[in-house]
Amino acid sequence: MIPTIEDVKAAAKRIEGLVVRTPLLRNDALDEATGAKVFVKAECLQRGGAFKMRGAANAIAALAPEVRARGVIAFSSGNHAIAVSTAAKLFGVEATIVMPSDAPRIKLETTRGLGATVATYDRVRESREEIGAKLAAEKGASLIRPFDDPLVVAGQGTCGLEIAAEIAPDVALVPASGGGLSAGVALALPRSAIYAIEPAAHDDIARTLRAGSIQRNAPGVRSICDGLLTEQMGEIPFAIARERFAGAVGVGDDAVRRAMKFAFRHLKIVLEPSGAASLAAALEGGLDLRGKTVAVVASGGNVDAETFTQALAS
Amino acid sequence: MIPTIEDVKAAAKRIEGLVVRTPLLRNDALDEATGAKVFVKAECLQRGGAFKMRGAANAIAALAPEVRARGVIAFSSGNHAIAVSTAAKLFGVEATIVMPSDAPRIKLETTRGLGATVATYDRVRESREEIGAKLAAEKGASLIRPFDDPLVVAGQGTCGLEIAAEIAPDVALVPASGGGLSAGVALALPRSAIYAIEPAAHDDIARTLRAGSIQRNAPGVRSICDGLLTEQMGEIPFAIARERFAGAVGVGDDAVRRAMKFAFRHLKIVLEPSGAASLAAALEGGLDLRGKTVAVVASGGNVDAETFTQALAS
Repeated sequence: MIPTIEDVKAAAKRIEGLVVRTPLLRNDALDEATGAKVFVKAECLQRGGAFKMRGAANAIAALAPEVRARGVIAFSSGNHAIAVSTAAKLFGVEATIVMPSDAPRIKLETTRGLGATVATYDRVRESREEIGAKLAAEKGASLIRPFDDPLVVAGQGTCGLEIAAEIAPDVALVPASGGGLSAGVALALPRSAIYAIEPAAHDDIARTLRAGSIQRNAPGVRSICDGLLTEQMGEIPFAIARERFAGAVGVGDDAVRRAMKFAFRHLKIVLEPSGAASLAAALEGGLDLRGKTVAVVASGGNVDAETFTQALAS
Repeated sequence: MIPTIEDVKAAAKRIEGLVVRTPLLRNDALDEATGAKVFVKAECLQRGGAFKMRGAANAIAALAPEVRARGVIAFSSGNHAIAVSTAAKLFGVEATIVMPSDAPRIKLETTRGLGATVATYDRVRESREEIGAKLAAEKGASLIRPFDDPLVVAGQGTCGLEIAAEIAPDVALVPASGGGLSAGVALALPRSAIYAIEPAAHDDIARTLRAGSIQRNAPGVRSICDGLLTEQMGEIPFAIARERFAGAVGVGDDAVRRAMKFAFRHLKIVLEPSGAASLAAALEGGLDLRGKTVAVVASGGNVDAETFTQALAS
């Protein structure tokens, strides 16, 4: 089932009070640098430090109570794990999280700190899907997918609905990997040109949009944007993207570091690399934004001190 | 003239659209650490990166147009300078800023970048008041005081009015030095216990409240909180403080650095040392906040990368 804007509106009602209505930040320096009227949707200020709480809370809230009571399982590179753990805690149910062993330490620690059980796997040699499905079968718990689920896409879309309540952007720049957030925001902003922002070296969405079918990245591609390294888009996000996306923009690691520094200096928010990708695209992505109203979704702020310090020194 | 809550309400109308209605941030980790329900008023997200824009915009907006056209002058350790420069720019009038020569580089640069003329002075040997008054007389420009002005106090109070629109705090923790912000917030929150937060080594407000008359700091006292080193409270803020403040709490430099790191890790906001003082007081100030609704005014985020990096490493 492909969700619609009605599903996004239903999600907004379902998760009200569980998630933060994040602010849209304006900044004189950012407007000057881009020639546009830019609004930064500060999802780093979301509960759990990233937008992922929206989709996770919607999916878990929609479970029948007796199903929810058997617990939930998620596989995630980090922010989805934090989101599912947090949402599970709010509902008083057990969460088991399958995480790559090379996930940022802060994300592993935070997930454990939220009371979830963490099972690690090797990102290159093992399939997280198989591990997640096996654990789900053993425990009778519900698998909460990070993006290829109508309820998750609709939940992420509430971010776009909040944008639409305040402004009517000509353009929305949204970090994308699995595509849950970008597809959800596209549903909520039917009149905006939606650009998926991805790591330059991990350009499957650009290739997917050109080819008209889902393309993959070679395994093992690295980028500072650790939250944007999904092997391929989800099928549900793709079905929305092929109809609605204006394009995809790749951003390099150095541009992302400069965007993190810009956010530190001018916006006073902490962005993780994946969360700064859309700001990097606004500042250095080669799009002509002059005179336009632009929504930049700054999707998360879960970054360790070392990575952040390196960005400030760049 | 001592301003009242009516002056604060008038200020809110006058500066609407010129300043940002900053968000009140909640955070699970912060609630757990304090045992309270804490709301962080994120004034680092204010235009210019600090609350100072509120008072400056109110004072400049209230000038008669023909007076305003002759320009404005301010003396400031930094954030007031940025605020007056920004507000002057919005009104299309000239700003001359008298700043200490040892002000953080980012603040000097930012002020110049806003189109203001900067005149520096030696913080230990010279009186900024005399220099400001002399320049004002020469240019016919209006001196915008940083705190000892009813319009400035009322303007800063709009921060408290925004808090009152969303919550009814039992306690408000507000960084204080000249006292403009803390006195203004006290006007706007007549039912809250107001605590002034100051550097532990620079405890004039604690001594002032005990003595019942304005006490001074010895010149040359240093603290990482460069925005909280005013020699003594203003008379207007003191008149409000003596009636309304529940007390003053001193915070050490190390506690402030830890609060900056906490804000980075959990709140995802960038706080300058002075801006983190109230958070430091909530976390380590020895107040019993358990079970209470607490407003923490995080007053600014204009910090250079080096100072911030040191805090993250602490």
